[in-house]
Amino acid sequence: MTAQKRSVPDLARQGAAGMNTRKLSTAVLGATGYAGCELVRLLLRHPQVKPPLLLSREGEGSARLDEFYPALSSAVPLPLEPFSWKKIKAQRVRLLFLATPHDLSRELAPEALDRGLRVVDLSGAWRLKDSGNRAVYALTDRDPTKAARWDSASVYGLPELYRRDIKGAQLVANPGCYATSVILGLMPLARAGLIDRSAGVVCDCKSGVSGAGKNPTSKTHFVEVAGNFSAYSVFGHRHTGEILEQTGLVHDELVFTPHLLPIPRGILSTLHIRLQKPATARQIDRLYREAYAGESFMRCFGSGALPQIQYSLYTNHCDLGFELAPGGRRLIVVSCIDNLMKGAAGQALQNMNIMFGFNEEAGLR
Amino acid sequence: MTAQKRSVPDLARQGAAGMNTRKLSTAVLGATGYAGCELVRLLLRHPQVKPPLLLSREGEGSARLDEFYPALSSAVPLPLEPFSWKKIKAQRVRLLFLATPHDLSRELAPEALDRGLRVVDLSGAWRLKDSGNRAVYALTDRDPTKAARWDSASVYGLPELYRRDIKGAQLVANPGCYATSVILGLMPLARAGLIDRSAGVVCDCKSGVSGAGKNPTSKTHFVEVAGNFSAYSVFGHRHTGEILEQTGLVHDELVFTPHLLPIPRGILSTLHIRLQKPATARQIDRLYREAYAGESFMRCFGSGALPQIQYSLYTNHCDLGFELAPGGRRLIVVSCIDNLMKGAAGQALQNMNIMFGFNEEAGLR
Amino acid sequence: MTAQKRSVPDLARQGAAGMNTRKLSTAVLGATGYAGCELVRLLLRHPQVKPPLLLSREGEGSARLDEFYPALSSAVPLPLEPFSWKKIKAQRVRLLFLATPHDLSRELAPEALDRGLRVVDLSGAWRLKDSGNRAVYALTDRDPTKAARWDSASVYGLPELYRRDIKGAQLVANPGCYATSVILGLMPLARAGLIDRSAGVVCDCKSGVSGAGKNPTSKTHFVEVAGNFSAYSVFGHRHTGEILEQTGLVHDELVFTPHLLPIPRGILSTLHIRLQKPATARQIDRLYREAYAGESFMRCFGSGALPQIQYSLYTNHCDLGFELAPGGRRLIVVSCIDNLMKGAAGQALQNMNIMFGFNEEAGLR
Amino acid sequence: MTAQKRSVPDLARQGAAGMNTRKLSTAVLGATGYAGCELVRLLLRHPQVKPPLLLSREGEGSARLDEFYPALSSAVPLPLEPFSWKKIKAQRVRLLFLATPHDLSRELAPEALDRGLRVVDLSGAWRLKDSGNRAVYALTDRDPTKAARWDSASVYGLPELYRRDIKGAQLVANPGCYATSVILGLMPLARAGLIDRSAGVVCDCKSGVSGAGKNPTSKTHFVEVAGNFSAYSVFGHRHTGEILEQTGLVHDELVFTPHLLPIPRGILSTLHIRLQKPATARQIDRLYREAYAGESFMRCFGSGALPQIQYSLYTNHCDLGFELAPGGRRLIVVSCIDNLMKGAAGQALQNMNIMFGFNEEAGLR
Repeated sequence: MTAQKRSVPDLARQGAAGMNTRKLSTAVLGATGYAGCELVRLLLRHPQVKPPLLLSREGEGSARLDEFYPALSSAVPLPLEPFSWKKIKAQRVRLLFLATPHDLSRELAPEALDRGLRVVDLSGAWRLKDSGNRAVYALTDRDPTKAARWDSASVYGLPELYRRDIKGAQLVANPGCYATSVILGLMPLARAGLIDRSAGVVCDCKSGVSGAGKNPTSKTHFVEVAGNFSAYSVFGHRHTGEILEQTGLVHDELVFTPHLLPIPRGILSTLHIRLQKPATARQIDRLYREAYAGESFMRCFGSGALPQIQYSLYTNHCDLGFELAPGGRRLIVVSCIDNLMKGAAGQALQNMNIMFGFNEEAGLR
Repeated sequence: MTAQKRSVPDLARQGAAGMNTRKLSTAVLGATGYAGCELVRLLLRHPQVKPPLLLSREGEGSARLDEFYPALSSAVPLPLEPFSWKKIKAQRVRLLFLATPHDLSRELAPEALDRGLRVVDLSGAWRLKDSGNRAVYALTDRDPTKAARWDSASVYGLPELYRRDIKGAQLVANPGCYATSVILGLMPLARAGLIDRSAGVVCDCKSGVSGAGKNPTSKTHFVEVAGNFSAYSVFGHRHTGEILEQTGLVHDELVFTPHLLPIPRGILSTLHIRLQKPATARQIDRLYREAYAGESFMRCFGSGALPQIQYSLYTNHCDLGFELAPGGRRLIVVSCIDNLMKGAAGQALQNMNIMFGFNEEAGLR
Repeated sequence: MTAQKRSVPDLARQGAAGMNTRKLSTAVLGATGYAGCELVRLLLRHPQVKPPLLLSREGEGSARLDEFYPALSSAVPLPLEPFSWKKIKAQRVRLLFLATPHDLSRELAPEALDRGLRVVDLSGAWRLKDSGNRAVYALTDRDPTKAARWDSASVYGLPELYRRDIKGAQLVANPGCYATSVILGLMPLARAGLIDRSAGVVCDCKSGVSGAGKNPTSKTHFVEVAGNFSAYSVFGHRHTGEILEQTGLVHDELVFTPHLLPIPRGILSTLHIRLQKPATARQIDRLYREAYAGESFMRCFGSGALPQIQYSLYTNHCDLGFELAPGGRRLIVVSCIDNLMKGAAGQALQNMNIMFGFNEEAGLR
Repeated sequence: MTAQKRSVPDLARQGAAGMNTRKLSTAVLGATGYAGCELVRLLLRHPQVKPPLLLSREGEGSARLDEFYPALSSAVPLPLEPFSWKKIKAQRVRLLFLATPHDLSRELAPEALDRGLRVVDLSGAWRLKDSGNRAVYALTDRDPTKAARWDSASVYGLPELYRRDIKGAQLVANPGCYATSVILGLMPLARAGLIDRSAGVVCDCKSGVSGAGKNPTSKTHFVEVAGNFSAYSVFGHRHTGEILEQTGLVHDELVFTPHLLPIPRGILSTLHIRLQKPATARQIDRLYREAYAGESFMRCFGSGALPQIQYSLYTNHCDLGFELAPGGRRLIVVSCIDNLMKGAAGQALQNMNIMFGFNEEAGLR
């Protein structure tokens, strides 16, 4: 799995090469949202990518991105232009990032793919293979046959699991933030068949407020969130389907309980597992380290050194740690990511790096 | 299990025994806002007041207040009823609290007063005597003559300055939150003629987010506020007029700079003053203590013991402290209040207590 | 200006009139800690209790409590005096609150009881009947026989379970904060035998920072906590024993995972349970409402209306809500308390109210 | 002022050159503090600098920096070694960063300079030319003559003012965080002689908690800071001297009032100035833009677009904006920096870049 990574030319050579070659043209639709804006920030400092074409959705009008995010003010102008296929073509865009509502992704992705663009979609529109799981999004397709084709051709953009497929993919479905933290935390156990499915896996997950989006609502009002903490979407969160599909667990074997933390960003997932048979901390530690050997963005803290949300903020890391109860049957895995980075924009950039043969860490260190 | 509890006399009977009189009937229009809700909370535990009639504004429909504020859930039902003069009359309401937009206060107060009700208005509609200062609110009156009469008959509801007038007032204009903290901090100096007006008084004020209201906007979104701090409405905040009218300073002699703190509630005003002539800390200390002698809600911390926002949260206190520079000319006064209590609902209750002859601290300890 | 205020009967006289009896004398050792200070605040406004004698531990010297908590500044002096049995006797103290480290409670409680005082201990020293569970505190007793006698005579101070015993108790062991939220959340299910013990109960609990105490450490430093979130003491927290003893679950059937929230106060416990057999939301709702019928401080929000931490802050409430998964086997109960109120000082006051025959809500509304 | 900057080879050439030449060896003493750690983070990603030698102070023992900051965990080992001149020499260190207490900087800097090292000192030990201003640090020198020599040879490390001197300096005194924000905000006005000194300049400054250091105290305890806000060190803060020396104002002409914000990092300074004569917003705007033309890290937002703390977090920017009152005499300038970046480590790196001829933005974008 990591062999191919090493075969990619290293940063120095690429950097040198990059200066003598054409840089990649990309476009971002939905740059005014939190994930979209974070993505633009990353693209702007990526050595092999041109400043992206920023496309606004209907009703946003022409503007500059730094009017929405003054922190981005700089010498570089960041014009937001109304979405147009013509402009995309004129700028020879090869990769389109969709940081858009599910509906819009479902509508635009097939057309973009038809036009020969590659697409990284940050919405939930193309993540699910099982139409039952997809039902939660209530998607309707103008051309159901074409949509079905892309449903099966899309690649779930979790590089630690699907790097090889992502490399050649036309359509990458960037995973959900909660799903990323849970799947990466459970996968080594699931693959090794260590999970006692009869007891059920309890995923008690906590996310910062940026996960709820930029739209101001009573739920994101500072006074409602500060000094507060709450559970929400219990037994009904849309990321459940992704977790089930990727881990192979079925509904009755998984409890996924999201909570809202009074912080701007970051996710910590506490995963409660009963093991099929007793294990030692050393065995668990080795399992995780081997599963993620060679991975640039996975940090295994091992037993008794649980990661905290601060550790991975503003990075593309997924941090993992665990505690094993005396007896060796009860295991708690803690998984932390920055929901806007490994949980959204960082992972999208990582996917782009893989798709276009760049160093996987480019623009992410 | 609960029998023993019932044998103790209940709260209501105790209250009745204490007073031997009929309790006061009040109504609150605007209970769903932060100040309105805080006021309801205070009224509910006031020993001499009935549970208030809660009136909703157009479009809010019939509902219960605890649907908006689940923290208020209790045995007591809190129905929100559409505004109606008939209901107000039927319930023999004697005092109407308006926690409403300026426009609506301007419209409803005169009619309420005509109907014989007394009014405590928490908006800015009736605070200003000078029509120039009032211009910032862009108020239009259906009956300008009547409005003008009430403009002059209304009493600025700062008990520490106008207790005697409040006692007999029909219409009390509850002061602005910033204005309360600034005026109480400056008044002893202003009355003693100690302020060097030629240097200008700089009021650098900081408020928690509840001061911006319950309406969700991009400015109150958690992600925009948390970990952030900003100045706003510089040279243009609507409380400026109140401060000028009460302190007797003119525009060029006062700078009022509001800032938004990443906390839910509380105001700290840092008042920078140059004195007419050098003073000692002891003189300043005595000045403040004498000015506020006998006041239940004023706490003078004296020199070198500056109050902090936490000290007065959830209380009706205004806390004052100061530092005098070597030389005795430069003085910094720090004034803290809870913007929803002494800055709004607490002060409104204090005004009610004065208007109806209750103990001024009733319901506020 | 203040004349009218003086004409109203003062608070003390009113209280006396209300009761016609001598007020209760209490003492608090450990008033400088967060729970101790909160307790003092509550005692000061309790109508049937004198201002408490505040006793300081060795090394704290003579001082005033408001030097530690300027928010308490008021007309009432709050002297902190070095601990002395003589003073306790002189002031005819009948109830001693210990807000002290476990060791000190273990040392002082027996002597206090010998001297005829009643004791409410806020530490973990006397909560556990099983010496195995007690081992985690590493307690050593000078007089093990006497200690053993009090181990069995002490009453676990959770009024909703042990009101009758608390009434006559000499020594009340005030429950741990986490334990209170978990036990009250699980008890109706445990008593009804509905818990599928084979699957294990997962208690994923989150607490504000005041639960970690007032002592400044790197773990309570603002910069380490703000914007952060972390799990701690996994499989090793000291409240585990209390939960096991009260619910009747055994070690392998319970997972208790504490987390630190970036907020000052409040606990939310997410309890993941598999039921023995499918139930309906209506059945669960009725179970909880019946279990806590007549309880002043229990609020059952029912299905689909999960409580949040803000709802119970600064109150003595324990708020409960739940969600039942389709199929009726998987249940999630959310339990919220204010860790300094129902989780410590509020519950201590509630216990005092029961022990001395006061209204159970006195001083807590 | 900017000519010399342009004469420095550009990033591409330098980068290329850097790869073919020896990278700079640096050492950091005090890496476990917030500023020291931030500096290490920056040095680790600087293309022309080797991973720094990390030196620990007495009592810290041998350890790894990521034990103090798990967020730094990575493939790169970060050993902390006891301070030793021998090790510094062995590793051919050319630049020593001192992120140490004032006393220790005062002791070590002269010896380091004698040994031929260049020094960037992040403490206040060498910032002040006037011994009267220096008195606040209560420094004692073993060799007063040598110390006096370095007092006059040291360069105040504010590149926007002293770039030319920094280039050749042996000892650079990195400015205080508050001082940086205030001086950069006032300098254009001071140089143009626009400040009405008779009215006094009021600098009302607010800083996040990391400015108070990593040592846990009651003042940095989460529960004391969260939801709170306070003024401190009024008329006595140690940065006052720097501001006076750089702006040319005298004590009576400047009020500097620091406040503690409940956020981890960032400074916002609100500067209240009366102008000598009326100006227009356009004139003020031009003054600032010209003063900072060509500066990489200065962002002038102009009139009516005040910067907020979030805009410059995690960057080396100093953001400036202003509002001019009607009449054109009263001006408010808002200046924002990240106290750990432009206020400490970022500025230290910027100084290093200048001292060693690197691109001034290297490692800071």
